Amino acid sequence: MSGKLRVGILGATGTVGQRFIQMLERHPQFEVTAVAASERSENKAYAEACSWHLPGEMPQFVKPLRVQAPQPPLDCDVIFSSLPAEMAQAVEEDFARAGYPVISNSSSWRMSADVPLLIPEVNHDHLRLLEAQRASRAFAKGGFIVTNPNCSTVMLAMALAPLHARFGVSAAVATTMQALSGAGYPGVASLDATDNVLPFIANEEEKIERETLKILGRMNGTRIDHAAFPVSAQCHRVNVSDGHMAAVRVKLARSATLQEVRDALASYTSLPQELHLHTAPERPVIVRDEPDRPQPRLDRYAGGGMSVTIGRIMPDRVLDYRFVALSHNTIRGAAGAAILNAELLAAKGYFDSTRSGAA
Amino acid sequence: MSGKLRVGILGATGTVGQRFIQMLERHPQFEVTAVAASERSENKAYAEACSWHLPGEMPQFVKPLRVQAPQPPLDCDVIFSSLPAEMAQAVEEDFARAGYPVISNSSSWRMSADVPLLIPEVNHDHLRLLEAQRASRAFAKGGFIVTNPNCSTVMLAMALAPLHARFGVSAAVATTMQALSGAGYPGVASLDATDNVLPFIANEEEKIERETLKILGRMNGTRIDHAAFPVSAQCHRVNVSDGHMAAVRVKLARSATLQEVRDALASYTSLPQELHLHTAPERPVIVRDEPDRPQPRLDRYAGGGMSVTIGRIMPDRVLDYRFVALSHNTIRGAAGAAILNAELLAAKGYFDSTRSGAA
Amino acid sequence: MSGKLRVGILGATGTVGQRFIQMLERHPQFEVTAVAASERSENKAYAEACSWHLPGEMPQFVKPLRVQAPQPPLDCDVIFSSLPAEMAQAVEEDFARAGYPVISNSSSWRMSADVPLLIPEVNHDHLRLLEAQRASRAFAKGGFIVTNPNCSTVMLAMALAPLHARFGVSAAVATTMQALSGAGYPGVASLDATDNVLPFIANEEEKIERETLKILGRMNGTRIDHAAFPVSAQCHRVNVSDGHMAAVRVKLARSATLQEVRDALASYTSLPQELHLHTAPERPVIVRDEPDRPQPRLDRYAGGGMSVTIGRIMPDRVLDYRFVALSHNTIRGAAGAAILNAELLAAKGYFDSTRSGAA
Amino acid sequence: MSGKLRVGILGATGTVGQRFIQMLERHPQFEVTAVAASERSENKAYAEACSWHLPGEMPQFVKPLRVQAPQPPLDCDVIFSSLPAEMAQAVEEDFARAGYPVISNSSSWRMSADVPLLIPEVNHDHLRLLEAQRASRAFAKGGFIVTNPNCSTVMLAMALAPLHARFGVSAAVATTMQALSGAGYPGVASLDATDNVLPFIANEEEKIERETLKILGRMNGTRIDHAAFPVSAQCHRVNVSDGHMAAVRVKLARSATLQEVRDALASYTSLPQELHLHTAPERPVIVRDEPDRPQPRLDRYAGGGMSVTIGRIMPDRVLDYRFVALSHNTIRGAAGAAILNAELLAAKGYFDSTRSGAA
Repeated sequence: MSGKLRVGILGATGTVGQRFIQMLERHPQFEVTAVAASERSENKAYAEACSWHLPGEMPQFVKPLRVQAPQPPLDCDVIFSSLPAEMAQAVEEDFARAGYPVISNSSSWRMSADVPLLIPEVNHDHLRLLEAQRASRAFAKGGFIVTNPNCSTVMLAMALAPLHARFGVSAAVATTMQALSGAGYPGVASLDATDNVLPFIANEEEKIERETLKILGRMNGTRIDHAAFPVSAQCHRVNVSDGHMAAVRVKLARSATLQEVRDALASYTSLPQELHLHTAPERPVIVRDEPDRPQPRLDRYAGGGMSVTIGRIMPDRVLDYRFVALSHNTIRGAAGAAILNAELLAAKGYFDSTRSGAA
Repeated sequence: MSGKLRVGILGATGTVGQRFIQMLERHPQFEVTAVAASERSENKAYAEACSWHLPGEMPQFVKPLRVQAPQPPLDCDVIFSSLPAEMAQAVEEDFARAGYPVISNSSSWRMSADVPLLIPEVNHDHLRLLEAQRASRAFAKGGFIVTNPNCSTVMLAMALAPLHARFGVSAAVATTMQALSGAGYPGVASLDATDNVLPFIANEEEKIERETLKILGRMNGTRIDHAAFPVSAQCHRVNVSDGHMAAVRVKLARSATLQEVRDALASYTSLPQELHLHTAPERPVIVRDEPDRPQPRLDRYAGGGMSVTIGRIMPDRVLDYRFVALSHNTIRGAAGAAILNAELLAAKGYFDSTRSGAA
Repeated sequence: MSGKLRVGILGATGTVGQRFIQMLERHPQFEVTAVAASERSENKAYAEACSWHLPGEMPQFVKPLRVQAPQPPLDCDVIFSSLPAEMAQAVEEDFARAGYPVISNSSSWRMSADVPLLIPEVNHDHLRLLEAQRASRAFAKGGFIVTNPNCSTVMLAMALAPLHARFGVSAAVATTMQALSGAGYPGVASLDATDNVLPFIANEEEKIERETLKILGRMNGTRIDHAAFPVSAQCHRVNVSDGHMAAVRVKLARSATLQEVRDALASYTSLPQELHLHTAPERPVIVRDEPDRPQPRLDRYAGGGMSVTIGRIMPDRVLDYRFVALSHNTIRGAAGAAILNAELLAAKGYFDSTRSGAA
Repeated sequence: MSGKLRVGILGATGTVGQRFIQMLERHPQFEVTAVAASERSENKAYAEACSWHLPGEMPQFVKPLRVQAPQPPLDCDVIFSSLPAEMAQAVEEDFARAGYPVISNSSSWRMSADVPLLIPEVNHDHLRLLEAQRASRAFAKGGFIVTNPNCSTVMLAMALAPLHARFGVSAAVATTMQALSGAGYPGVASLDATDNVLPFIANEEEKIERETLKILGRMNGTRIDHAAFPVSAQCHRVNVSDGHMAAVRVKLARSATLQEVRDALASYTSLPQELHLHTAPERPVIVRDEPDRPQPRLDRYAGGGMSVTIGRIMPDRVLDYRFVALSHNTIRGAAGAAILNAELLAAKGYFDSTRSGAA
């Protein structure tokens, strides 16, 4: 008996599911014991059901696992979900109702009033929402749902959080240049990607504008008062494999010097760093002062793919300051985000009833 | 005798120089009679001196022309210049002083108070600056300098012009995704371009922020009152061969409905269209209503590369409206811009004294 | 009444179907009067059914045409087909049986003994197979099937034809680097294309090895004796939008100097050039002597996309000579190939009974 | 005192130089104590002199090292050189003459009769050439030159070696699709790389054809009898950042079944594996049986970038067998090749006199 929490992955054959498996291969606290996916894959061994698209070989441990239907029961203590949004709502609720903690990367539950939309560095106090969730929903003991944000929102929220804390953000404008892997596989057609930019990603602008405000909101009793400033997002798909970039402008509530803005970003650290969570990067935000950074190819793996790299911090003529942010969209923006959430939940004891329940 | 104006091209072997030659091959009013470039190329035949990088073969007519030094005299009536900025200032002035009209794509003279920074659709009345230029400078009869804007600025200014005319623009925010050809040849290293975005283009943000306001300024006697609103530009190089894109937000002085904004853009037409200038596109601004346009690969050659395509016009939460603009950076953004300027100058009689002077 | 042959396109909404429509927009002999595609598109206007992926706008004329089922009757004199192989066999036969000439780009009928696999420059005499076809098949008067080769095979066969005619080819080795558009739309996933090469294209190597020998075969009465030399093909998908490239080695039956090989290729001309067929390029094979040509980006539109560009002709240490060939895979390799076939058939009177039959 | 061999890198700021530094950062036997480069960089700290282009940050240890002139003496025990060929010949000889062992990635000395062109798995016995080198050249005690092959040659030779050993190779045909990093930085212009293939790499075909035969040659006393079969190489640059691919055909001297060919490749292991050299991959050749492998994006880091991945092994119609090979061009093809050479030399005691000499 390893003493690790046993993880079941929903959507295990997809792009994010593969990242989950890759990142959990040698994780000290979690081990993957169940994989589930849509009907086409069911009952095949994972090695057969999954066309592995990440560099490096499919980890040995996962090859023989049978792909099961995404419904309870599964032989695991915790559920990590990257199901498509249209399936996720019902399926994730089914698992929570059956007593499984559900750590979800899907968009279905993110905006529900009693579901934490969690970035451990930014709003770990939002976990208090789980009390409301427990109170109002008929979930079996140990069951709950915690979500992580959209891949671009994570990056924006992490860049805004230190500024909002120190100076107050009164408006934010983000223009994204997003990587192909964000669309999954097969995702974007190569004829649309080569020598081209696509100025449209379905629902992305809305998600960023909405989710950012919940994440930066304040706990008020057992509910969140969303942040009140306007957010504007324009989203583009560019010919990059991994690594979302955003050109950001912010208006601040209190005046700040360029140096103060830089310092607020560069010195940012938070609870996951204090707790030394396994997947937490030493520096959640890395500031680079070279004129031509960040770049997806050079910076996406900073902090093991968990750091947001920020550069080109400058005064702006229309808002107050501007900068360029970059992070790895399937690590900090998806699988790594969910894993870090799970690590925080473990550290805070949220899985304790689960484990005894499963024993 | 063809009756055409004889053109000399400075910087003839570069990326923009090649576009000049390609676009002038069958031009009804101009013919290339002289080519000049930096010292390495001098005295070779153009066919030898130039490594042709445009699709299609080098035009026959230019192959035997000797590449000369970029200094007067050259056997031509008009100068088209795409010299590097550091050379352009002195060389272009030398030609103007010697009585040549200089149509320049270089940045050196753009911001000089008595030099028109011309987009024929937008500010043809700025040609009145030439009176001031004539008065103050010791140019021989027929000599003058007219410039066109930076490749990204053209696109932004053409998108803002109809809005500024109808509603007043009170702030503009542009985030560009620019093509590789904008950096010339060899320009950007392929290792920097592949699977990557570069968040830095030297001096580009400053040019856009500055030039836009001069272009949209008003003639006041013989000088220009620059437009007074703030412009913010963040510039990025993406892995696209041709076609600059910009995500734009605007704040308007007077309120306007989405439909009014769309109509102002879609119905835009101006003097070059009235005069049926050869290179003028039927529609200087093309509005597309599909959710995923404009795209560089599909839209860069709209209007023969001379139209700006605009899509995704929507209300914005921080400023008033937003949209995405695209145009061909070496046609409308460089060679085509200069040629259209020359066509307007021809139509207005600015070359008349030149020709007789040359006769 | 235009006097043009009325064309029906099967598979009209696909990548090759769109090229047909683009190339026939202003064709002097053909006009598109019917468009057909798979069930999902049926009964919609073409403008709605088709997501246009070629640069430039969808031609006006085709927008209102109703997309019909791919089955006779269609309101046209001639059928151009680019149906998927699995559908093409039965559907194309249905049309031929109903008296329509079928000009097919599909692979289904290419290797049938009584079906010409036609490249007008190379084997126009193979049209005599139509006598056998007429004799053995129960096609209504005017009905027949003519096919064009696989997109890579066209290029290889056109490069080998002049060498085979003069010196005899005794072995050919081709290694292809093929463009993304050859896989249709959505085709290759961008995550597979970006920063990558795929060493596999289903059935492609077999098609090249097989079809080349039929094309270079000799008419023997009313059947073809296939050429007898071995052909080896290794096929790769590279990150290029349009333009297939092949590195070719050949062994010759009779010895030839490098100059003789170059001359045989550079001087190649044939019946379509003599007949001045509309789509025939002036030079079917263009030899370039620069060390770094051909290149897809620079050479794919040579001869309007109908020429094969060949460079780097050199002695080879294992076979006798080697060179690199390039042609546009959706023009000379697909839509243009079929249109040129139709132009030859028209010139030879093969559509005469059709037209009167349709009257 | 670390007990490690102290390494000086010539060409330390280039693409391969950066790989040396990255790979040696935590090497158990070597530590970088000196960096040298061309004049422009001299006397600056490495952090200033070098524009770091590899993902991840420049290692801390190298930042303060002064960049020195590439001439003896340097404060180190061993020289790793990746100088440009035109400089390497004289400079490397100078160092050897001064008593430094020179492990060179440059092409200058590769074909010299008394210089080993070493791939430790393939021809470790060629180190006996050093006796001849010592005898004939006036190198101070401890000085010698050992080279590694061209980046494409390594891959071809490693693929041919097991076949040559078991069956004899009687002809080899290689068509390469090479990565951009092979040209260094800035190297290939992005306008040449995007949406394109370049069919020319200067001197590359000659190097592959020549070097392969020396590597596969047999020691005969103190000289090498080069292998005698013909090698044909056609080389192309494709839009891939790292990872050279080659489509290979081979003719065998003795007949072999497909299974025997596959087994010979898959079971290949050699001295570096026996000696457990630090950089030696567990499997020098990895055979993949999926129809669409190898791929640069998925397979270049196999074996830490030191394995050659081979797939698509099949009978060939012109030669006997064919396959596709892939390896990392700046690791196994350059820096890793040299480091593995050094590890073998260390294991064999070739640095012993050096160290005491330096002491």
